[in-house]
Amino acid sequence: MKKPEILILGAGYGGLMTAVNLQKKLGVDEAHITIINKHDYHYQSTWLHEGAAGTIHQDQIRIPIKDVITQHKVKFLKDTVIEIRPNEKQVILENNKLTYDYLVIGLGFEPETFGIKGLKEHALFIRSINSVRFIREHIEYCFAAYNNESEKRDELLTIVVGGAGFTGIELLGELANRIPELCREFDIDRRKVRLICVEAAPTALPGFNPALVEYAMNQLERKGIEFKIGTAIKECTETSIIVAKDENVEEIKAATVIWAAGVRGNSIVEKSGFEAMRGRVKVNSDLRAPGYDHVFIIGDCALVINEEIDRPYPPTAQIAIQMAETCADNLVALVRGKDNLKEFVPDIKGTVCSLGHDDAMGVVFGEKQLYGAQASIMKKVIDNRYLWKLGGLSLVLKKGKLNFF
Amino acid sequence: MKKPEILILGAGYGGLMTAVNLQKKLGVDEAHITIINKHDYHYQSTWLHEGAAGTIHQDQIRIPIKDVITQHKVKFLKDTVIEIRPNEKQVILENNKLTYDYLVIGLGFEPETFGIKGLKEHALFIRSINSVRFIREHIEYCFAAYNNESEKRDELLTIVVGGAGFTGIELLGELANRIPELCREFDIDRRKVRLICVEAAPTALPGFNPALVEYAMNQLERKGIEFKIGTAIKECTETSIIVAKDENVEEIKAATVIWAAGVRGNSIVEKSGFEAMRGRVKVNSDLRAPGYDHVFIIGDCALVINEEIDRPYPPTAQIAIQMAETCADNLVALVRGKDNLKEFVPDIKGTVCSLGHDDAMGVVFGEKQLYGAQASIMKKVIDNRYLWKLGGLSLVLKKGKLNFF
Repeated sequence: MKKPEILILGAGYGGLMTAVNLQKKLGVDEAHITIINKHDYHYQSTWLHEGAAGTIHQDQIRIPIKDVITQHKVKFLKDTVIEIRPNEKQVILENNKLTYDYLVIGLGFEPETFGIKGLKEHALFIRSINSVRFIREHIEYCFAAYNNESEKRDELLTIVVGGAGFTGIELLGELANRIPELCREFDIDRRKVRLICVEAAPTALPGFNPALVEYAMNQLERKGIEFKIGTAIKECTETSIIVAKDENVEEIKAATVIWAAGVRGNSIVEKSGFEAMRGRVKVNSDLRAPGYDHVFIIGDCALVINEEIDRPYPPTAQIAIQMAETCADNLVALVRGKDNLKEFVPDIKGTVCSLGHDDAMGVVFGEKQLYGAQASIMKKVIDNRYLWKLGGLSLVLKKGKLNFF
Repeated sequence: MKKPEILILGAGYGGLMTAVNLQKKLGVDEAHITIINKHDYHYQSTWLHEGAAGTIHQDQIRIPIKDVITQHKVKFLKDTVIEIRPNEKQVILENNKLTYDYLVIGLGFEPETFGIKGLKEHALFIRSINSVRFIREHIEYCFAAYNNESEKRDELLTIVVGGAGFTGIELLGELANRIPELCREFDIDRRKVRLICVEAAPTALPGFNPALVEYAMNQLERKGIEFKIGTAIKECTETSIIVAKDENVEEIKAATVIWAAGVRGNSIVEKSGFEAMRGRVKVNSDLRAPGYDHVFIIGDCALVINEEIDRPYPPTAQIAIQMAETCADNLVALVRGKDNLKEFVPDIKGTVCSLGHDDAMGVVFGEKQLYGAQASIMKKVIDNRYLWKLGGLSLVLKKGKLNFF
């Protein structure tokens, strides 16, 4: 009998954990498993903001795929997905064309700019190792330019973060820690540097308990961050942003604008004919795409409704990793000819938002609120726990966050 | 009796060494000595190319002025010289106006672009800590941008060095060592990077023995540097240079163009009414400016003829340091009411040109040619010897080049 071909698209949290789960659960002779990824490394997208700020090096954020897959069980192919043809059970890659029996789509997120003028052209995005390394270098370049010009352009030292959601706040926490280092490196007076956060919603961190939100904002304001809440970015130009609060329109000169206010699922998903909202497909309870029994969609491209509040769960690493477990179990069942597929039930263990390496806040174990050092330690435990799942102790030691105090 | 006021303009090799010599030779009650400099640090301009390449950090290149002057003997004033009025014995600073009894002009060099179109606007210059830190960041920025753009622009990875003189060759040596590190840091294939040296003269390193020139070029070519000798830069644009060899005109796309083919004395010297050629004043044999008995000019703003070949000595650190000794001795004589001023006689001990931290070539002790590791060690000895003169053992240990092997 021919072994079924399982293709996994994308080596993010969802795709790579599916591969790791499958290599544990399936025997070598039960299936051909191939994972396809644009780069030969996996990166932790929840750590990307740290690479952008320059507080950790990109090599701590990324993990060579071959370091975590068992190569006689899972084949890694470095290629870029162009299109999926679910009706022909085909995937078109940049350099190849593959067919599958079972497909796992874990193609991750893209920035969503909501059509705001000039953002795509002039803003920077937290998206990949390449993009955050560029942000780090862009900021250093601006700081280096400041003292090298006879006329001092203060906008070189102004950094705007668009969005005070989870990513925006975590990025601000890292930048607040990084700025004093940059000032020393480039001989710049700290008081010349502006770090501005613009958020259109009436509050920072929507969905968080107000006490936690207040804590976060106070801590960041103490470190010199200016918040403009209830203020929308109307346009981004090459040298500034134009913002509006109620009727008041203001132009802020800034050489660095980082957009951290919206993500969507990968646009390949829509282009391939799946019915999707902003690249996210409302999957069946067993994580399969409606109408396509051989296609699983997980991670940021999958949409699952939280029945309690009748709204989608936000796309997080936590959910992607849990989806990967259910997805792997269901693939094992299908390969073995069973049809009792599991239902995906998210188990939200809490959310901790870091405010730099030394501070954090959040909720864990249902209702317990944590602040400061305690929350910061919990955040690192969560980060290391994922590395443990992915590659065991050796990976925790190699890439983990072990600077607890 | 009123103590005479000695003003020293500039804390480069000439100015700072004059101050250090004076504080050794003059008693506290013999003169008021003030040294004026734009920054509160001295930098070693012969190491600047290493900062530009990123092979050493700017903090190793610079030394806080207060670390080497004896503050009860020499006063340091951080200010920028705008104009000298030798007829009124006045110096106009950005924030002050001072009068002097004796003046030492050690205002250093400026890049000379010989009127080549676009160079001033688009090329980068090895001129100061600020300018070389910017070069380092500019190159990193281009390398970071390369992988962050969907369309790959190879010119981001092309670096052009204008000039194969001493500075150009030393810079190429450092860049050749740095490029493999940059390729690792930014995930770039080394074969994509081009390092091109354009030199208008018919040979690299004019004035050096042909055997040494050949050694240098072979070593650098082995490390992947392309030489275009006898080729003139006609124009520098935002994205390219236009070069010509005989009748052949070629445009080379390059995001980084570093001009290392010409320096001149500080233009303040001409603006202040001294008779100068490219900012250099042909000084009397006692280093005083013709017609101004109270003004010494030393370092890159001074021109001294080498009678043997009837051409000016090139402006080097070695000569500036020797001038500082004669200048200090002559100031001591004047302050003490003597008129037997010393004649400045350069004592050229040799010239070693580095080709990266691990290679060099040159001539020492008159005629002895050195190559490779031996020359490289000699180069470091020369560098450390200056630190010894300036600040003794502690400065050698703090800022010296101690990586001999």
